[in-house]
Amino acid sequence: MPNETEIISRIRQRSRTTADLRVGIGDDAAVIAAGERDLITCCDLMVEGVHFRRSWTPPYLLGRKALAVTLSDIAAMGGIAKFAMVSVALSSGISSEFVDELFRGLFDLADESDVVIIGGDTSSSPDTIFIDTIAIGQCARNGAVTRSGAQPGDEIYVTDSLGASALGLMLLAHGIRLEREENPSHREALIRHLSPKPRLRFGAEIGKSGLATSMIDISDGLSTDLWHILDESNCGALIRAASIPVAECVKRSTSSEDEILRFALHGGEEYELLFTARPEDDSRIRAVAETVEQPITLIGEVVSEKGLNIKLDGRLESVKPSGFEHLI
Amino acid sequence: MPNETEIISRIRQRSRTTADLRVGIGDDAAVIAAGERDLITCCDLMVEGVHFRRSWTPPYLLGRKALAVTLSDIAAMGGIAKFAMVSVALSSGISSEFVDELFRGLFDLADESDVVIIGGDTSSSPDTIFIDTIAIGQCARNGAVTRSGAQPGDEIYVTDSLGASALGLMLLAHGIRLEREENPSHREALIRHLSPKPRLRFGAEIGKSGLATSMIDISDGLSTDLWHILDESNCGALIRAASIPVAECVKRSTSSEDEILRFALHGGEEYELLFTARPEDDSRIRAVAETVEQPITLIGEVVSEKGLNIKLDGRLESVKPSGFEHLI
Repeated sequence: MPNETEIISRIRQRSRTTADLRVGIGDDAAVIAAGERDLITCCDLMVEGVHFRRSWTPPYLLGRKALAVTLSDIAAMGGIAKFAMVSVALSSGISSEFVDELFRGLFDLADESDVVIIGGDTSSSPDTIFIDTIAIGQCARNGAVTRSGAQPGDEIYVTDSLGASALGLMLLAHGIRLEREENPSHREALIRHLSPKPRLRFGAEIGKSGLATSMIDISDGLSTDLWHILDESNCGALIRAASIPVAECVKRSTSSEDEILRFALHGGEEYELLFTARPEDDSRIRAVAETVEQPITLIGEVVSEKGLNIKLDGRLESVKPSGFEHLI
Repeated sequence: MPNETEIISRIRQRSRTTADLRVGIGDDAAVIAAGERDLITCCDLMVEGVHFRRSWTPPYLLGRKALAVTLSDIAAMGGIAKFAMVSVALSSGISSEFVDELFRGLFDLADESDVVIIGGDTSSSPDTIFIDTIAIGQCARNGAVTRSGAQPGDEIYVTDSLGASALGLMLLAHGIRLEREENPSHREALIRHLSPKPRLRFGAEIGKSGLATSMIDISDGLSTDLWHILDESNCGALIRAASIPVAECVKRSTSSEDEILRFALHGGEEYELLFTARPEDDSRIRAVAETVEQPITLIGEVVSEKGLNIKLDGRLESVKPSGFEHLI
């Protein structure tokens, strides 16, 4: 079977555009013209055995996460999430309680995010649980923030902190379960992995401000997702290892500097926002972040020379994309 | 596991509305306000072993059908289909050629339908193929045709002819395959099942005309889908067995009147449009159908008394919904 990148590349070759389409295949979401505003839409799949395992995921958190990952794409375009749909295929062994908890999680996050669930589809499945969530958001006309607008000299920022989701995934793979774990750092890492928070308020505000030159959400890992921005923007970047905001629970869980950096630099499913802005807008960027109480950190700069380099202990090292890999 | 109806009922209980939402969960598609027009959106899931089997479905036709069933929902709202997204999870045994054919079918139907594919998601899958297609269409403000507008006295129409898809499914279940079959009636039935045609032009035109009081596409079978209209419109109907337009390939394949009626009345996955209109608009309805060369047939009337009755050989019989059941 061709891999995901090959499939997407073939789809992009065949895709065409039209007058109403502002952003097509290849960004976090598509953007279409809709009267005075633009409409942002995207979908995100969660497949049992690939994105999650039933044995380590409480169904309530699974429902939340299935929606969170899609809403995060609307945030990554600088949009306001408004509506969602959900398609689920459930295998026959699933209990009524599981279904209720799954939808409770989904609807709870929708309500908290001021998102209305407007439709979907349900089906049985021979064995595997499959959840596809679709989000619809909006932004000002031509106001969406794409991956392709970064320019040399721009500063690179990331919201909150990194590494916790990857630590959580590693703990799960080692048999540690949320419902039995008492170590607070481990619990935090597990929750960050099982129930990521889409940065909806910050995404919408930074989108409205017009200050971000490019933006993406970190689903594949900081290194891979920064590469996506650099590829689409046709430039390179230099980031500082010491500046990357590592989650406290990661620092408390390991003393290996290498491991800490690996979690923060390559760990996937963070759903933090990674964005660029002109250096002269730094104080305005920080003011936007303060209004929604969103910690952000400046981690490096965009440069004209292609490639991604990291400054680590006074040396410069080249970074290849090596983010999140799915379970199979 | 709760069945599909129970799950949808629970989702509807939890769903809420908002100012921008014109039609929410429970119709063929959702409708949201978007400036001067309304936007129609829906999604439709195809699961291997439930909606199709790999051994009897050429991947090119699978791609076409996956998109067709979703576009049909836009037609059923009287909208113009504009954009689509597709989420696919593919098991590792799938060949590169299969993937290419699947997407070729999908893109071919999109191009023929003037629909632009704007996004999606791909994933691996442990074993089962999942395809979720999402469609976005548009209609005039408050111009969508719902299931709930039928009134006593309305006439009931259906596009084209019925029964062929159910015959096709039965042939497939008996081991008959499109690539080996030479009987032209069987081939027609197989094609109608494997590659249904969404009635996009007629749906859009009848929507624009404002003449249909209610509409649905026949995915579960004429009996079940007419029940959906009657339930949502709070009325009943009388249809005439002799008026139901049976596909020629069905008539040529069986001489049993009972079987013919069963195929046409209860056979699912037709994707013909079933709609109601005021009797005084009959000639205008027929004029719309003629402009897009869409055969339509008047099959009965809406009545105030609840229930669905069919006139058969001079007798009246009560019809329960007993449409399409999925493979598992």
